[in-house]
Amino acid sequence: MNEHRVRLARVALGCLVEPGRRDLFELVSTEGPEGALTRLCAGDAAAAEVVRSRLAGGDPRELARRQLAAADRAGVRVLTPEDLEWPGTRLADLARISRPTLSGGTAVDRDTFPPQCLWVRGTLPLAATVARSVAVVGARASTPYGDHVAAELSYNLVRKGYAVVSGGAFGIDAAAHRGALAAGGPTIAVLACGVDRAYPMGHAGLLEQISEAGLVLSEWPLGSEPLRFRFLIRNRVIAALTQGTVMVEAAARSGSRQTLHRALQLGRAAMAVPGQVTSATSVGCHEELRKPEVLAVANVAHVLEEIGRIGADLAPPVLGPERPEDQLDEVESRLMDAVPTHRPMLSGEIARIAGIPVRVALAKLPALVTKGLLEERGGAYRLPANRADRR
Amino acid sequence: MNEHRVRLARVALGCLVEPGRRDLFELVSTEGPEGALTRLCAGDAAAAEVVRSRLAGGDPRELARRQLAAADRAGVRVLTPEDLEWPGTRLADLARISRPTLSGGTAVDRDTFPPQCLWVRGTLPLAATVARSVAVVGARASTPYGDHVAAELSYNLVRKGYAVVSGGAFGIDAAAHRGALAAGGPTIAVLACGVDRAYPMGHAGLLEQISEAGLVLSEWPLGSEPLRFRFLIRNRVIAALTQGTVMVEAAARSGSRQTLHRALQLGRAAMAVPGQVTSATSVGCHEELRKPEVLAVANVAHVLEEIGRIGADLAPPVLGPERPEDQLDEVESRLMDAVPTHRPMLSGEIARIAGIPVRVALAKLPALVTKGLLEERGGAYRLPANRADRR
Repeated sequence: MNEHRVRLARVALGCLVEPGRRDLFELVSTEGPEGALTRLCAGDAAAAEVVRSRLAGGDPRELARRQLAAADRAGVRVLTPEDLEWPGTRLADLARISRPTLSGGTAVDRDTFPPQCLWVRGTLPLAATVARSVAVVGARASTPYGDHVAAELSYNLVRKGYAVVSGGAFGIDAAAHRGALAAGGPTIAVLACGVDRAYPMGHAGLLEQISEAGLVLSEWPLGSEPLRFRFLIRNRVIAALTQGTVMVEAAARSGSRQTLHRALQLGRAAMAVPGQVTSATSVGCHEELRKPEVLAVANVAHVLEEIGRIGADLAPPVLGPERPEDQLDEVESRLMDAVPTHRPMLSGEIARIAGIPVRVALAKLPALVTKGLLEERGGAYRLPANRADRR
Repeated sequence: MNEHRVRLARVALGCLVEPGRRDLFELVSTEGPEGALTRLCAGDAAAAEVVRSRLAGGDPRELARRQLAAADRAGVRVLTPEDLEWPGTRLADLARISRPTLSGGTAVDRDTFPPQCLWVRGTLPLAATVARSVAVVGARASTPYGDHVAAELSYNLVRKGYAVVSGGAFGIDAAAHRGALAAGGPTIAVLACGVDRAYPMGHAGLLEQISEAGLVLSEWPLGSEPLRFRFLIRNRVIAALTQGTVMVEAAARSGSRQTLHRALQLGRAAMAVPGQVTSATSVGCHEELRKPEVLAVANVAHVLEEIGRIGADLAPPVLGPERPEDQLDEVESRLMDAVPTHRPMLSGEIARIAGIPVRVALAKLPALVTKGLLEERGGAYRLPANRADRR
């Protein structure tokens, strides 16, 4: 079971190395997850020192197995890029983030690469849920004005068919989640600690609600501490998962400004809500609004307009209700395009036309059948009658 | 006294034709003020019909003389482009305003050309006063928040050495004038009626104060009514006189948005102050802020930064005190540039080098002597010794 071994290696890497590191990402890109893990444990890669200390002589795959078993007991799924519901295109953008220069900056500036795995509470499929989604973030020390706007905006985003992603913190984050929940969800809390931890403590009930109506997720394994720097590392995932980020209130020095910067770096819509210039909690918003690439948004219509505008450049616009094909990654889309309209085709031929390795096509095609996008008979795939007619 | 005759013609034109018309501007440009007046009274120009009805068979120069005498009795100066303190460069920009297309639009959209004269109460020299100036405009039905911000901003602009220009109306305009007065002025109210009229009535005292610490001015002769459309015609002067316009509060449909548009068309800094998105009085500001060319400003530092940025691109920065050459119009600048540094030159030769008709050069050169920028002897002009050295 090669797939299972890859998965174990990903989970081990997710447990042994802090997320976002370029060296790990590059190692996995060239060697694959298993090769990368082997190299790390052998001690001949950059992050090897940390890995050795965390592993303390143990077997990394055993560690991963224990983690997966613990997750299972806690009702937590572990996703890796090999999973169908992994939001591959969105998170892959993190590898192409525009970075100032070479080696400079702190860990937070450097560690912007995609995660190896995600721990998830909740039943909604992740990729499909974030396909139409907006991040609503802001100050912990928010004002009633900010809370009101965040809740109102999130409520209306959900009503318009968007998931609201935020960080689960006090203040604007909480108002955003609550607004989304009031509309029936979905909403997603991206944490900077294990999803089994109620952090902040006062949000135990809220996080429970979120996991029921949406998802609570984290790059860190169960039990991980909400260390200070992890919040900033985490922010890139909030920005990457969504089509755009709205900052509702932010003081001059606010972590949510960093989320907005990540959205900008990722080519996502970056938006801020104006407030009174006499309010210290809006200073960060107004500073961001002075950049021509950050848009002032006063209501859900403004947000949707901006997301549509950005989307028109970078992604096909989602028209009407969500369809299964809206959630395909690039490989899946190319495979779908290769299937002829009115006759079946063998998987090898589809792979050839799509320009995709046969091995990958064989792994992907059954999932397209599961989604109802293709029908299979005797190794040949064709469009279902209703889809062929729509082409 | 040719100069006096030109002035009389300008005043007559200012009394007989509503300001801003392109046809009058073009007629004056080609024929000069006297020629334009003659053509209009003879009935062979576009505005002739209105002129005839206003003149009712009288002598236009006699009308102008009566107006000037009335102004004199009321302590009101009348400025024309021939005056040293006429802010020539600023107002001349109105002739180059970017206009949508051909003949379309209402009078307000079309009538954006420079005024022929200005009626002025107050002793400060106009051009020098607006050399460093910012327009602060906004809603009549302002909120305490808007009033506070307008007053605070204007106070600080004056403290930084800028004049505050506004429209003398209730609400934001009044708060702006009062903030500037609190800092000792100067502030300028640009009215849409005669400067002898207290409009709005409740502002009689405020306008009196403004004329003492600054200027109250209008394009319309004494006694003119504050007709509805005149406010919109007037707005272009507020935008043109200043280095930038700040809109503090504005409902969705607000006249002050038009002032901001004029500032944009003129290449001036266009700025808006954010407010709560739940406030109807900030909807106009937030709509404007959605344009990338309108900047969000939260304090005086933001305003000065933007004015500096725009200034750097489009106009020479005013360094230190205002100099006479800062107020030259394009023709005058070209004539000055044509005069050699260390020897006298005959007017015909200067005109040839400057590429200006001799007739125009002969009309303009004496004014440059009056301003102390040139010396004349026997029809030849030269730089004064102190200026030649500075070249």
